[in-house]
Amino acid sequence: MNETHIASAFDRDLEAIQAQIMKMGGMVEHAIAQAAQSLETRDEELAEQVRDRDRAIDDLEEQVNEATARLIALRAPTAVDLRLALSVLKISSNLERIGDYAKNMAKRTTVLAQMPAIEGAPAALRRMAREVERMLKDALDAYIRRDAELAQTVLLNDHDVDQMYNALFREFLTFMMEDPRNITACMHLHFIAKNTERMGDHVTNIAEQVIYLVTGELPEATRPKVDNVAQSGGFGLEVE
Amino acid sequence: MNETHIASAFDRDLEAIQAQIMKMGGMVEHAIAQAAQSLETRDEELAEQVRDRDRAIDDLEEQVNEATARLIALRAPTAVDLRLALSVLKISSNLERIGDYAKNMAKRTTVLAQMPAIEGAPAALRRMAREVERMLKDALDAYIRRDAELAQTVLLNDHDVDQMYNALFREFLTFMMEDPRNITACMHLHFIAKNTERMGDHVTNIAEQVIYLVTGELPEATRPKVDNVAQSGGFGLEVE
Repeated sequence: MNETHIASAFDRDLEAIQAQIMKMGGMVEHAIAQAAQSLETRDEELAEQVRDRDRAIDDLEEQVNEATARLIALRAPTAVDLRLALSVLKISSNLERIGDYAKNMAKRTTVLAQMPAIEGAPAALRRMAREVERMLKDALDAYIRRDAELAQTVLLNDHDVDQMYNALFREFLTFMMEDPRNITACMHLHFIAKNTERMGDHVTNIAEQVIYLVTGELPEATRPKVDNVAQSGGFGLEVE
Repeated sequence: MNETHIASAFDRDLEAIQAQIMKMGGMVEHAIAQAAQSLETRDEELAEQVRDRDRAIDDLEEQVNEATARLIALRAPTAVDLRLALSVLKISSNLERIGDYAKNMAKRTTVLAQMPAIEGAPAALRRMAREVERMLKDALDAYIRRDAELAQTVLLNDHDVDQMYNALFREFLTFMMEDPRNITACMHLHFIAKNTERMGDHVTNIAEQVIYLVTGELPEATRPKVDNVAQSGGFGLEVE
């Protein structure tokens, strides 16, 4: 696409960084899947592995950030290429945060394994996690292929995740009201649900970056926030 | 410090960006204080103002990031200066997230204003928010003055915030067990407490960046995580 010598060097460097992003993405997908599995099967050993492996994800983010900064410093990119490089930083930062949430899920697995089981909840949370994992895969494919249409479907899928969260919240509420002894376990499960919903939001951020790269505009209007739920006293509150 | 012509230009540009960081920091401090005040006084109008003003914080982060990227692209900084520039990105990202949590607190204020009051909780949350606000002020002063010692006190103060959170969590639990009609309000209050504790973690990230800039090392060992609480079935779980 770019025909000058300097621009090709930029593209080559960027491709190497994108490969690191994809590696990081694969590790994060794996972390989500395994954290959810450990929760469902009460597998504390697997949960511990997820927690341990988060450091490698963090290290990879650090590497991506430094490589990107070096790329910018070395290649002095044009405005368009600079935007491309800044996108890389945003994507790696979102991946890192999703990884943190997976680690947090694994931590809570360890705690929940000591408590009475809440019927059906771990399976429902695993379905929710699987949806987020699928969204992440799509968002990263969309990024590599610069496919705005695929990125757009990710935004739509995020609404499903929001709805799954709202349904789960209500379910936990009834368990807590039925028996106060369920309260502590339900609060952990609720945090897991909330964090999984936040993972979905971070995947959405990645998809939005893809749309921005392809079309030059952020799809602000396509992402209705769940504020109406908040207003009605529900729990669909999001910090981002 | 730097004697070449290019390095001075870098320093000058960096100072302008640091001024923006301080402006952003002031806005975030304000948002924390006002969100906590709106919660305590059930002032929905003030809460709405906090929510509206978060956009300005987000915009400022965008400006800081683009200015920093341009700085890197234009000045091709040395390794040390590049680290300095990357620190700016980290600090602005942490400030933006603290702002998001303040906005979220303001949102929950609107919801909680419709529910029965939980005695003492809003005042306790405001004290916690005030502590975080003070930590943020110190962290930003430490950044501007490159004062590693002051940054170190911020890390210590964060333990107080963690302890305030743990105490509040237990208090909310008793309110919920006493009367199931308190459950919904307590879950909102619990999220506010958790998010305030997370604000403290983001302030800590800023203080750690300062220590890194001054000493060249991240103070890994000085920041004991609250994992032992998690292990014992408590709620001191953090995603970062």
